[in-house]
Amino acid sequence: MSGLMKLDTEAYKALMKRYIETRDEQSLYEIEQASKAFIKNNVLPDEIVNMHIQSLQDLYPNLSEDIQYSMNFLLEAMIAYGIAHQEYQQLREKQS
Amino acid sequence: MSGLMKLDTEAYKALMKRYIETRDEQSLYEIEQASKAFIKNNVLPDEIVNMHIQSLQDLYPNLSEDIQYSMNFLLEAMIAYGIAHQEYQQLREKQS
Repeated sequence: MSGLMKLDTEAYKALMKRYIETRDEQSLYEIEQASKAFIKNNVLPDEIVNMHIQSLQDLYPNLSEDIQYSMNFLLEAMIAYGIAHQEYQQLREKQS
Repeated sequence: MSGLMKLDTEAYKALMKRYIETRDEQSLYEIEQASKAFIKNNVLPDEIVNMHIQSLQDLYPNLSEDIQYSMNFLLEAMIAYGIAHQEYQQLREKQS
């Protein structure tokens, strides 16, 4: 994991932890804003899922294997979206 | 949920169930292919996370609340990516 991605994952995890504990709308608003910043910083959608997996593993080290495997499955489903997202960024750069 | 989305969710859930049970590479290959088809059918990345949530709820009705809330959080993080993905599709249509 790159240094920046590690920082992003820490921020994601902290915000997710707060949301799970408090279930407040404010955390959801903040992740929505963070998400827009991630897009600006060229973070791909499959990298978000990866951050999510890392965060779950850190917060719930005893998470059932089934759920862990289900998350691998979601990551695999998101890879094609990551590629599409990259193409989108390239198209936009060409146009600007 | 639209009829098509319901069908997609059933396919996603069946494939995820098989992967969790067998942990075979074939299921991962199939979801990768299905994912490309979802993109062609204008399914957005946040809709994939939504299918994932529905599938988890169906397969694991006793899933812990923490994990359910963590998935809401991921969904919220993916919404901006859904909007970006739509913009990408529109750009591509303009170009073709």
